Amino acid sequence: MLSSNLLRSVFPVSSEWVFSCIKCGSRRYCQKPFKKLTISDALSTKALGSNIRIQGWVRSVRSQKEHLFLHVNDGSSLQPLQVVASHDLNDRGLTFGSAIDVSGSLEKSPSGKQNVELHAKQIQVTGKCDPTEFPFKIKERHSLEYIRQFPHLRCRTNVFSALLRVRSEATSAIQSFFKDNGFIQIHTPVITSNDCEGAGELFQVEPASRDKQQDERDPHYFSVPTYLTVSGQLHLEVMAGAFPAVYTFGPTFRAENSQSRRHLAEFYMVEAEISFTESLEDVMTVMEHLFKASTEHVLTHCAEDVELFHKFVAPGHRGQVDLMLSRKFNVISYTEAIDILNRSSQIFTFPTKWGCDLQTEHEKYLVKHCGNIPVFVTDYPYDLKPFYARDNQDHPRHTAAAVDLLVPGVGELCGGSLREERLEILRSRIIQAGMEDAYEWYLQLRQFGSVPHGGFGMGFERYLQCILGVDNIKDVIPFARFSHSCLL
Amino acid sequence: MLSSNLLRSVFPVSSEWVFSCIKCGSRRYCQKPFKKLTISDALSTKALGSNIRIQGWVRSVRSQKEHLFLHVNDGSSLQPLQVVASHDLNDRGLTFGSAIDVSGSLEKSPSGKQNVELHAKQIQVTGKCDPTEFPFKIKERHSLEYIRQFPHLRCRTNVFSALLRVRSEATSAIQSFFKDNGFIQIHTPVITSNDCEGAGELFQVEPASRDKQQDERDPHYFSVPTYLTVSGQLHLEVMAGAFPAVYTFGPTFRAENSQSRRHLAEFYMVEAEISFTESLEDVMTVMEHLFKASTEHVLTHCAEDVELFHKFVAPGHRGQVDLMLSRKFNVISYTEAIDILNRSSQIFTFPTKWGCDLQTEHEKYLVKHCGNIPVFVTDYPYDLKPFYARDNQDHPRHTAAAVDLLVPGVGELCGGSLREERLEILRSRIIQAGMEDAYEWYLQLRQFGSVPHGGFGMGFERYLQCILGVDNIKDVIPFARFSHSCLL
Repeated sequence: MLSSNLLRSVFPVSSEWVFSCIKCGSRRYCQKPFKKLTISDALSTKALGSNIRIQGWVRSVRSQKEHLFLHVNDGSSLQPLQVVASHDLNDRGLTFGSAIDVSGSLEKSPSGKQNVELHAKQIQVTGKCDPTEFPFKIKERHSLEYIRQFPHLRCRTNVFSALLRVRSEATSAIQSFFKDNGFIQIHTPVITSNDCEGAGELFQVEPASRDKQQDERDPHYFSVPTYLTVSGQLHLEVMAGAFPAVYTFGPTFRAENSQSRRHLAEFYMVEAEISFTESLEDVMTVMEHLFKASTEHVLTHCAEDVELFHKFVAPGHRGQVDLMLSRKFNVISYTEAIDILNRSSQIFTFPTKWGCDLQTEHEKYLVKHCGNIPVFVTDYPYDLKPFYARDNQDHPRHTAAAVDLLVPGVGELCGGSLREERLEILRSRIIQAGMEDAYEWYLQLRQFGSVPHGGFGMGFERYLQCILGVDNIKDVIPFARFSHSCLL
Repeated sequence: MLSSNLLRSVFPVSSEWVFSCIKCGSRRYCQKPFKKLTISDALSTKALGSNIRIQGWVRSVRSQKEHLFLHVNDGSSLQPLQVVASHDLNDRGLTFGSAIDVSGSLEKSPSGKQNVELHAKQIQVTGKCDPTEFPFKIKERHSLEYIRQFPHLRCRTNVFSALLRVRSEATSAIQSFFKDNGFIQIHTPVITSNDCEGAGELFQVEPASRDKQQDERDPHYFSVPTYLTVSGQLHLEVMAGAFPAVYTFGPTFRAENSQSRRHLAEFYMVEAEISFTESLEDVMTVMEHLFKASTEHVLTHCAEDVELFHKFVAPGHRGQVDLMLSRKFNVISYTEAIDILNRSSQIFTFPTKWGCDLQTEHEKYLVKHCGNIPVFVTDYPYDLKPFYARDNQDHPRHTAAAVDLLVPGVGELCGGSLREERLEILRSRIIQAGMEDAYEWYLQLRQFGSVPHGGFGMGFERYLQCILGVDNIKDVIPFARFSHSCLL
């Protein structure tokens, strides 16, 4: 069932698994990987007339006078393979959702709808599926909301299978982007003893079964209270003291009570930190390149899957994506943003006074104002930003070198800043916040060979929403966790 | 500071950041990435005589009659760049560990120790480092145990910087292996409501600040008790019902109280699941190829970093690694393993009767018995394995289609099995264990289009220990979490 790019050229392959090493018995490690034919391989071949064997799930069954027509999908591509069989190969188990194993010859299809079709010589039903009990129905297009109720089965729908292929390819594109640009990947920890970054409500972690007596003597497994990480930034800053550039890509957590279509309790963040960086532009350049390079990769490598979203989920969204890719992102300062909001005729719910945080309604207005091109908003009021943001020392408008990237539909996609690398300025701010004990280690990063550095985080699910046009964040993650819901 | 393979050929570059898009003002997204010169770039260039600017940390300072010699490292490679400066560029801040910014011309080095050296025209100390307070000392080789006390600074040592480059490259090699072989990457969840997989002590998760009153009405944030995942397997099995092959690579958790050199509370697992797989050999083939392909990639792409470990941390270990790569892994059944142990003259602490689990002492003996070549042990007693392992139905020796991969030094590196895909057999085992309510969803995977499938998990830290010869698991992870310790 595994396919290999290396071996794609040697097709047609045998219909059995090829175990080049274990089965050939060679004493020397054999470089040839295993190989099994996927439906994606079969659809793209030109080796007509060859005998092949494929396995997958039935997507449709059509009985005509002469033949039985099946569409079989194995998740290797959106397109199914058409199987043509004589009626004597029919079986009551050949229903929508059942798993089958088919051998036959691959032939040119007389229809214009597909290039090839499989003329079955043998069909075996390996796993039945009772259509009356299966929650998805043949030829019905179920809503994203409906399939969300079945987290263990929704990957069997075309739309969620496409989403998962896009998510996998986007992950890979992001990792390639960083690797090609010399970033070291760091696995920042999920469990942390940092509790005062102020990025929202925390989850606490303790063993499920703690001995009550032990609890009094020794209340915490780790000796200190521990939490699920809200960001890998501080740990990446450790690494920015030893590498030119680092990144992390993993789960982060917020215990917020909102049930909005924009929030999850567990979501993925891409975070990067760049050493020897003296300007916010350096950070913005990486953000813009990351967005554009990853998106172009996904559009190229998952064209059919992306098209499904742009056709059925968010009609017309492709134009929006192309627009974002073709234009240089806008840059405005927070102060300019406030001016734009105050000059607008729109009435906002939240205040637009200098010093107030930008709300979703403001972010949406600003993106629209910029012609639906993503916009960087820079240099926020110092007091709005966390203790690590670098002081611009620009009295009386006292700002920090921080930046948010706002995108159409989603609002804030990325947030970044230069980090305060000057020991004395950082120390006084940490003392002011009463955090000097907890952050002694963080101050030491500046005490020993400090370098100017900066970085950002990008919400990966919001990124997928932005490029696919998916409205609800729960529909772009394999298993959604949010207040009152942790299925499976 | 970022480098790009694409642009390595156009060196020499300007000494400043090149912002191809934002700075060129082009309305069309410009494909050229940003570029800054790393020390790795400088060391590998042949463009002698060019003016460059590099930044990094001072690794050594040597004052000779005519000149000052500095070794500067920026984490892009193990090798430092030698900087030669006249004494008038000397500065009291030029100490071990300080961060500097140097401009000058890159010249051929007269010494045989390096190809090129930088003749400094300007040196600026950007971050001082007081050598009396810095915990690492110039020219001293600190033990892994010593540097472990400074999790925020140990990445500044050669050995841990090398470890992190190897870890990053190994991560990338594993991801490429799966991608090239058609596996879809799935982000399996960290927070889960599954609590009975029996893989060890669980961590429980709740918001840090829960309102007491709320607690009575609604005791759990997710409405049910939730835990940190011990394995992504069950979630991957969901996906094995829709894709040919899937994998996950992320953190997993155990709240065990051991403080051994083999255990962490948070560690990384690579897990794969393959659909339409009817034999344990299919799973073993993927394990063996994964191990060999990733290791060969790391040995090739991180040669200097790996050599540091094989020279100073585990002298002679390279021979062991080459031996593992050159030989086909052994395969013995659990029953054969028990026979081997019983025939041995060694006295074991734990029993070696058929039906008993293999302990570390047994695993070590078996690997030695197999000439220090990794060995697959297959077909364990049915009662030793979790409910999902496939029943071999081979009475009276009742076994399951499960396999462990044992490797020298580490013992168990991977564990895998075929999964029970037959609805009725699985249902009766789940009912027997009293888990039918919790696993209704898991049974449904078999009710609707079930396919034979199997998979495995590999401990990523143990993998790194195995190829580098590192004795303590705490020394192969960026931030170690274990009983009574969660620094940072």
